[in-house]
Amino acid sequence: MINLTRGVPAPESYALDDFAACFAKAMREDGRRACAYNATPGYAPLVELLADQQGVKTDQVLIGNGSLELFYFLTMTELEPGDKVIVEGPSYDRTNLLLKRRGAIPVEVALEDDGVDLNALEDAMKAHQPKYFYCIPDFQNPTGSTLSVGKREAIGALAEKYNVNILEDSPYRSLRYFGEDLPPLSDFVNPARVLRASSFSKTMAPGFRVGYLIGSAAILSRIKAFVGNSYIGPASVTQAAAYRFFKDGYFEPNLRKLKDLYRPRLVRTLELLDERLSCAAYTRPEGGFFIGVTLPEGNRMETLIPAAKAAGLNISDGRGFYLDPSLGERFLRIPFCGLKPEELEAAFDALVPLIQR
Amino acid sequence: MINLTRGVPAPESYALDDFAACFAKAMREDGRRACAYNATPGYAPLVELLADQQGVKTDQVLIGNGSLELFYFLTMTELEPGDKVIVEGPSYDRTNLLLKRRGAIPVEVALEDDGVDLNALEDAMKAHQPKYFYCIPDFQNPTGSTLSVGKREAIGALAEKYNVNILEDSPYRSLRYFGEDLPPLSDFVNPARVLRASSFSKTMAPGFRVGYLIGSAAILSRIKAFVGNSYIGPASVTQAAAYRFFKDGYFEPNLRKLKDLYRPRLVRTLELLDERLSCAAYTRPEGGFFIGVTLPEGNRMETLIPAAKAAGLNISDGRGFYLDPSLGERFLRIPFCGLKPEELEAAFDALVPLIQR
Repeated sequence: MINLTRGVPAPESYALDDFAACFAKAMREDGRRACAYNATPGYAPLVELLADQQGVKTDQVLIGNGSLELFYFLTMTELEPGDKVIVEGPSYDRTNLLLKRRGAIPVEVALEDDGVDLNALEDAMKAHQPKYFYCIPDFQNPTGSTLSVGKREAIGALAEKYNVNILEDSPYRSLRYFGEDLPPLSDFVNPARVLRASSFSKTMAPGFRVGYLIGSAAILSRIKAFVGNSYIGPASVTQAAAYRFFKDGYFEPNLRKLKDLYRPRLVRTLELLDERLSCAAYTRPEGGFFIGVTLPEGNRMETLIPAAKAAGLNISDGRGFYLDPSLGERFLRIPFCGLKPEELEAAFDALVPLIQR
Repeated sequence: MINLTRGVPAPESYALDDFAACFAKAMREDGRRACAYNATPGYAPLVELLADQQGVKTDQVLIGNGSLELFYFLTMTELEPGDKVIVEGPSYDRTNLLLKRRGAIPVEVALEDDGVDLNALEDAMKAHQPKYFYCIPDFQNPTGSTLSVGKREAIGALAEKYNVNILEDSPYRSLRYFGEDLPPLSDFVNPARVLRASSFSKTMAPGFRVGYLIGSAAILSRIKAFVGNSYIGPASVTQAAAYRFFKDGYFEPNLRKLKDLYRPRLVRTLELLDERLSCAAYTRPEGGFFIGVTLPEGNRMETLIPAAKAAGLNISDGRGFYLDPSLGERFLRIPFCGLKPEELEAAFDALVPLIQR
């Protein structure tokens, strides 16, 4: 069975020996602090390192048990039931679910190849007075699309005009295989109304569960109070190891290694699409984990999922990424990083004959 | 400044070299799994080990980011605003706060030297139809008192009679310095209505944030669904290290070492109380982290806290452990584990002259 489902790092990508060395050094050099309760905002050396890297003050940093959990806490402190939040269509299914669980109302604005449809975004801001716009600007999940610089700038202006806060979620940002980094969306937004979420799940390992929010100290102070009361703080021995991973020079070579591992997988997947599925429309991402594929009309998840399964292939239900599931009937998310090139080929061998043209 | 405040392990108690060895082995032997997303209920080998140890099935285990966080999730899935929960008076301040944050109504039942006042408990169950009784039976926080076997049995019967679920919180249970273990409270309760919470925070280190719930699969299944949606799962590299700490025979010798470290601190604190504060009433715990002291009448937190501070001693505000703060005006929690005997003596040197007799 080949899993073309969850967006997970390649199992062979984990720098296990380096992680072990970082844990050992964390225990040896700062073990008493790393092992103690480390209340919010997190293990102090990592908080300081992140603040330095991001050019912010330490009160603009909050570390949590993965960035998803911090998003959950944000829904608890920053949103009330009935509040509107603009999300991209399609978007990360888990954040949509957390918004709904809070009783907030996600409002979907369609994505284009270069990010959200600006006219639709302004219309939605005007019509719904949303509190937040949840945006994944770099190598978006699930489409792989990247927001253009022009749109970043425009979103900053719209946020100000319509009094909307921005949550920029960018876990994939540093995994760019081609081209040049764009400035983060948050660079274009009034600092008082923006948070940026990221984590080490894709650049080290998800099992560390070290995620963070960077941004408005005022918003973070409310989330921090909630977090401290909820669980004192996230695991700090993992934060101490992540700190050593940076401090001792493991991070950058590891990132290069990851890019060298994933780049050919992206290239091969695009080749396979060009060669064997050119009837579909798809993004051409320059990084990240995902390629979003829109299959030709006539394809439906209801029949494709079981047919793929019978052919030895698990696919994600494209309807799950849309608030209006019918919009995802033909949407296929290809998480290319977790599969070896030969597995990607086998996935296409299974998939291609099932596609209606 | 001496801190007689939070109940934290002694910094010198952490088995740093052993922890480093466990992380290294976890990375070497099962690194790919430990580093991946490990969805609820947790890292499978640790889930299985806990199930084995506790004599339950694996669906009766849930691992979280510390047991406090699991308590928070329980408040979200098992309680509705307005639901009543019986708590001990005094009790752990953070759980009282989480109950209130949920909009639940904690109802305080007074503690005696051998645990909760049974008549008051039955009256409260009759009057309030609570959903849960939150009980810390072993070396209670903040009093250090231990629930007698007779009362454990009676509580099991009352829970059944009044249809109340039991949450047994026992993080200190394995830290017994004298005497014999009592059977867990959960042994006397209908298995369908009981959960037991514990963690490795006191027996390994808080910075691992590995806590767990054991008990009713039906209750746990609701909490698990909520947890999975909230953050996928807690850190698994720490769970993998905790697993190795057991599996490779580190846990038991470390527990003996902790007991040998803490036993003399308990003895010394009781001696100091007997010698220098016999005007107060206090528990004589046989384990755990805390001795609860009720100062003579006339003492008040409002004056004692700043006076202690001026004398170089931070104390916890006793009022914080009671729902009715006035009950805690004379209540002093002594967390004896985190201080060396000479620091305990210095704490008494600072404190004793301030006490009204």
